[in-house]
Amino acid sequence: MSINAAVMPAPGKPMEVWDVADPDLEAGSILLETVASEVCGTDVHLHHGRLEGVPYPIIPGHVSVGRVLEARGVETDALDNSLRPGDLVTFYDVHEVCNACWYCTVTQQPNRCPSRRVYGITYSAHDGPLGGWSERIYLKPGVRVLRLPEELSPDDVIGGGCGLFTGFAAVERSTLAMGDTVVVQGAGPVGLSAAAFAGLRGAGTVIVIGAPAGRLELARALGAEHVLGLDATAPRERAGAVQELTDGRGADVVIEAAGNPDALPEGFDLLRDGGIYVIAGHYTDTGAAAINPHSDINRKHADVRGHWGTAFQHMVRALRMLVKYRDRLQFNRLIGRRYSLEQTGQALADVEALNVTKAIIQPRGSASPG
Amino acid sequence: MSINAAVMPAPGKPMEVWDVADPDLEAGSILLETVASEVCGTDVHLHHGRLEGVPYPIIPGHVSVGRVLEARGVETDALDNSLRPGDLVTFYDVHEVCNACWYCTVTQQPNRCPSRRVYGITYSAHDGPLGGWSERIYLKPGVRVLRLPEELSPDDVIGGGCGLFTGFAAVERSTLAMGDTVVVQGAGPVGLSAAAFAGLRGAGTVIVIGAPAGRLELARALGAEHVLGLDATAPRERAGAVQELTDGRGADVVIEAAGNPDALPEGFDLLRDGGIYVIAGHYTDTGAAAINPHSDINRKHADVRGHWGTAFQHMVRALRMLVKYRDRLQFNRLIGRRYSLEQTGQALADVEALNVTKAIIQPRGSASPG
Amino acid sequence: MSINAAVMPAPGKPMEVWDVADPDLEAGSILLETVASEVCGTDVHLHHGRLEGVPYPIIPGHVSVGRVLEARGVETDALDNSLRPGDLVTFYDVHEVCNACWYCTVTQQPNRCPSRRVYGITYSAHDGPLGGWSERIYLKPGVRVLRLPEELSPDDVIGGGCGLFTGFAAVERSTLAMGDTVVVQGAGPVGLSAAAFAGLRGAGTVIVIGAPAGRLELARALGAEHVLGLDATAPRERAGAVQELTDGRGADVVIEAAGNPDALPEGFDLLRDGGIYVIAGHYTDTGAAAINPHSDINRKHADVRGHWGTAFQHMVRALRMLVKYRDRLQFNRLIGRRYSLEQTGQALADVEALNVTKAIIQPRGSASPG
Amino acid sequence: MSINAAVMPAPGKPMEVWDVADPDLEAGSILLETVASEVCGTDVHLHHGRLEGVPYPIIPGHVSVGRVLEARGVETDALDNSLRPGDLVTFYDVHEVCNACWYCTVTQQPNRCPSRRVYGITYSAHDGPLGGWSERIYLKPGVRVLRLPEELSPDDVIGGGCGLFTGFAAVERSTLAMGDTVVVQGAGPVGLSAAAFAGLRGAGTVIVIGAPAGRLELARALGAEHVLGLDATAPRERAGAVQELTDGRGADVVIEAAGNPDALPEGFDLLRDGGIYVIAGHYTDTGAAAINPHSDINRKHADVRGHWGTAFQHMVRALRMLVKYRDRLQFNRLIGRRYSLEQTGQALADVEALNVTKAIIQPRGSASPG
Repeated sequence: MSINAAVMPAPGKPMEVWDVADPDLEAGSILLETVASEVCGTDVHLHHGRLEGVPYPIIPGHVSVGRVLEARGVETDALDNSLRPGDLVTFYDVHEVCNACWYCTVTQQPNRCPSRRVYGITYSAHDGPLGGWSERIYLKPGVRVLRLPEELSPDDVIGGGCGLFTGFAAVERSTLAMGDTVVVQGAGPVGLSAAAFAGLRGAGTVIVIGAPAGRLELARALGAEHVLGLDATAPRERAGAVQELTDGRGADVVIEAAGNPDALPEGFDLLRDGGIYVIAGHYTDTGAAAINPHSDINRKHADVRGHWGTAFQHMVRALRMLVKYRDRLQFNRLIGRRYSLEQTGQALADVEALNVTKAIIQPRGSASPG
Repeated sequence: MSINAAVMPAPGKPMEVWDVADPDLEAGSILLETVASEVCGTDVHLHHGRLEGVPYPIIPGHVSVGRVLEARGVETDALDNSLRPGDLVTFYDVHEVCNACWYCTVTQQPNRCPSRRVYGITYSAHDGPLGGWSERIYLKPGVRVLRLPEELSPDDVIGGGCGLFTGFAAVERSTLAMGDTVVVQGAGPVGLSAAAFAGLRGAGTVIVIGAPAGRLELARALGAEHVLGLDATAPRERAGAVQELTDGRGADVVIEAAGNPDALPEGFDLLRDGGIYVIAGHYTDTGAAAINPHSDINRKHADVRGHWGTAFQHMVRALRMLVKYRDRLQFNRLIGRRYSLEQTGQALADVEALNVTKAIIQPRGSASPG
Repeated sequence: MSINAAVMPAPGKPMEVWDVADPDLEAGSILLETVASEVCGTDVHLHHGRLEGVPYPIIPGHVSVGRVLEARGVETDALDNSLRPGDLVTFYDVHEVCNACWYCTVTQQPNRCPSRRVYGITYSAHDGPLGGWSERIYLKPGVRVLRLPEELSPDDVIGGGCGLFTGFAAVERSTLAMGDTVVVQGAGPVGLSAAAFAGLRGAGTVIVIGAPAGRLELARALGAEHVLGLDATAPRERAGAVQELTDGRGADVVIEAAGNPDALPEGFDLLRDGGIYVIAGHYTDTGAAAINPHSDINRKHADVRGHWGTAFQHMVRALRMLVKYRDRLQFNRLIGRRYSLEQTGQALADVEALNVTKAIIQPRGSASPG
Repeated sequence: MSINAAVMPAPGKPMEVWDVADPDLEAGSILLETVASEVCGTDVHLHHGRLEGVPYPIIPGHVSVGRVLEARGVETDALDNSLRPGDLVTFYDVHEVCNACWYCTVTQQPNRCPSRRVYGITYSAHDGPLGGWSERIYLKPGVRVLRLPEELSPDDVIGGGCGLFTGFAAVERSTLAMGDTVVVQGAGPVGLSAAAFAGLRGAGTVIVIGAPAGRLELARALGAEHVLGLDATAPRERAGAVQELTDGRGADVVIEAAGNPDALPEGFDLLRDGGIYVIAGHYTDTGAAAINPHSDINRKHADVRGHWGTAFQHMVRALRMLVKYRDRLQFNRLIGRRYSLEQTGQALADVEALNVTKAIIQPRGSASPG
């Protein structure tokens, strides 16, 4: 028996649909039927070859929701909830962290472990269905699986996708104080999630800068008090708006989720002296930014914090919040269109063109009409 | 009676010696006879007009040692030590922090208080002898004075000058862990102080990058285990040396004390993933640096921390360490030459040309032969 | 002209109403007409003499809302909002922090400044109307005044009283992570506020332990997901309930707002290994607790954090949150009864007997019928 | 072939020497010839049955130095240094941390992982030679081994034993600031190590309280500026001495390494307002302490931090510091006497009676004369 999977054969090459061999199930492994996977901005960048060390051909899709088909000796999820065939799950895409290297043991930063592998990014399509753009997903032993809480539907989770967890982690990395003014640069899934969780974390005011207008409406729905359209305003106007909302000081916290180097000079400009700037939108290389060490960092007494590699704990905690605030955190509303395995090329194009906020890949589900 | 003071009349103009009126002593004020003041890199930049908001003409000299001539109702220093005419003191150059504004009260970052004034930088020469390049210094009410511990001579303190305290503060801002590898970029007074205190703070290895050779010898004497000459090595060699000392990972902490934008790309290159980069050398504007948000910050999960405005506590704590480690912390050895008030132009030129590590202004003392 | 004020003449002595001389207004001072002050648990303890260094006789009332009668040269509040006669304000009860001592300058912990004075607690009635249980309140120069935001009524603020700000500060001191389970011990104003802000700070679950039943209903209204009645449950049952809600681990964070030493052994029992325990309910001395250093602290790897001296920033930030969440944070509902100056003895008795959650003193308002 | 090992059969029972079967070596395991193990205060407590969950009979000895006899497929130590038969090593006594439970993954506190096992404490003697009081030690796959740096002899490490690493970790947990005054309660191996590393971490003054006099001399040799004999001084005198050294404020940091509940009230008394108190000496249950929540914690705004479970990183970093400061950190001087496997009962008695600072077990070496 074989599995259909969408494969990115190499940077710049059209997407293909491959037959992938059904994996032999090792002890401790799980086979999922894919319910939904997602297209993340990183997938677009992978298609352009902007990340080092990717073993093309790959089956993309790092965050997915699936249904347990078979579990070899696995009876609970990573939090000791019972797990049975038929259960809906999501899983932590990071795998094979070694728990032995210097990063794992000395600095306790497993997000920098050299053995670290990521579903949908650092496994080759030749290794099996190890990405979500596939009818089935093979979870190797030790992959951290989380049973979906009853209160959540697959769309609630996959509508945010990996951006849901990255945005959550960026907010935790910001250590914002209650009552702070937070500017989020970018209104894609990461930015929308950061805006939503900044509010739930106790921000006094959340301001989102982004485009297009539909995303800014979503930002408001998710809890942003103010939105500033990238197309509708000039940088000077945006700076003026932030100054006005902060008695002329600038934002206490800025979270970059734009993925564009030009966002950085503007972000420093919007940040108050002594503020915190989290850089969470540059998962791939889109070029350099001109930063003035004096006025942007030294004199500003700024804290600039890169965020790489959402940890499993962020996923666990974000799902708890999703359950608690399910009336407010309607990430399913981010879903712009659903694509079949044959339509993944179109999905990538639509995400790149900002035609959809979140594109969903449903290998067996009813795709939206093409 | 009047006071001789060296005055910087305007950016680019030659230094002058002025007669300044002897101030009337308010209640709570102190008049010092200047024992020694210093030339800091910032003074050179002030002469080039690279800092905003400076009310030229000014009497430079922000960190100084003096002898109490007269004290109007002041009987103790800022730590409640008795204070009498004849006592040797130094003082915190920052003054008029309001304790009332949003920065002082809400974020508790008085280093960003808009009322903040700094001796030798933000007072006009018309306001009186409020800088150290003067025969006498007028300490307005509320200036935080510290009696020099008996164990310390004026040269022990002024040899490091403001760099002594800035370097100390930069190390505290780095939150280095015991056993960490620390790279210091720059071997001027800030860099030398940072290297010395990084060692006393528990660094496992301290590496200083700088020039010229004499400064690197001082770095070793102050506790650096390794030095890399800026002239003697190419960036690639320095990167190789740091990689070798860190099992290929890069430094846990980098402290920038170079004052050159080009230091930043190199600093990011030397920093390990998940490391901390303190920017403490850009007290004035010397241009922009090209930073890659992806590889330098986001993917590196880096912490970049600007340091502005050494706090009074750093001064208190640094002096304690100076007493405890007076055999090791021989900052007096940084003194390259002593200048009279008439020679301050030469002093600025010598500092800019790196002819001396620390230039000392001694308004009444025996200047080195010109 | 004179002012009526309720005076606590000495521990154990009945409350009295005194005529206090109308103060001469110094430059920088403000005279308020008292709209409402509060009875805090500390006032009960002051009446029992359980705090050292109180200069009886005193006019109690540290947190109050008033209307500006006259302002001598003061045209803005502490955040630069305009201030005019007739404006409703509250103010930071802590005053005379010196900004010069070791605590103010070296450790930056002004809450431990020895010069620190507190309205309603550390000023004698002979010093003037420096407490809220008085027709008028004299705000000495430098007292930090905050104009009430338009969105808030006096009851919105005084209903929480000082507990509103203490509870806020206790939550900030807990550094809880998003999704954490938080147990609050105590359902008085501090505990209710801590529960409310723990929720707004991102707690996944908030559990309040307290009595009587009416307060637990308020806890639910303010955002607690679970309440455990002190009378209705045995400690073992409460421990079982917390274990069940935390997969057997115990709470991530416990906030003590009970004011009873017996709360501590129970709090340690409810806390998970590696958890954080904030002690915020012991503003006066009610005796010792038996703590096991091995099982409660060392083996548990616990963090125990005392909270003393809410800072001005907590007040500013809490008011922002009160405006943002005014539909949810109905602290006015805590008000159990309003008392005249003649009824303050009864007010103290009612608070001690837990007959009211928050007792309000309204020197000129319509007191509830006695 | 069999192995001689000293066995603690049950609490209160005399020590025995058993023949233990030579283990079969699994892939990834290492067999060591024991060079030296240690007697830690915890071993005395284990003999009294003061720790829960110990699977008697056990072979004690959690920190040891050994020589590699055989390594099954292991060619490097935990830091990627080459490893060959004949190499001297020490190892991290904690093993079987699961990297999968809530503590390992969500709170990143593996020191609280329920699967965690500790050599010499939580393995039964029936499981094999899994403690250091044995001729050979079997290192199961995954035990983190560290090759001894060339600069260090076995005595340099085992002279401090586990206390060396616990003291190091306690200092890191204290987050002391440079220039702080640190009081260490206790002059056993943990206290001496804490005093030594507090100094290397940048403490301004280190004060050790303990007994007997010989240990206090060691404290001085390791870097303490002041020592206070427990027998020679009354608590009031010690409080007076600390007050005098801190301008009446008390110590910034107190580290408890005494293992006696009575140390806590004294520790709180010595701690300044707003100070940090690390509890690191109560690895077993020796009873409760009477703590006043008001004056000791709440009003003091104290931070009390339990330390459990030294992490591997502390071991790595402490060894680095040991190499760097090998002239100063002469932990070999703590060794009071060396015992054979037949003399372990005497060793326990000598440690309990404070006859030796550090007792060493040398299964094959030349024991000191009995």
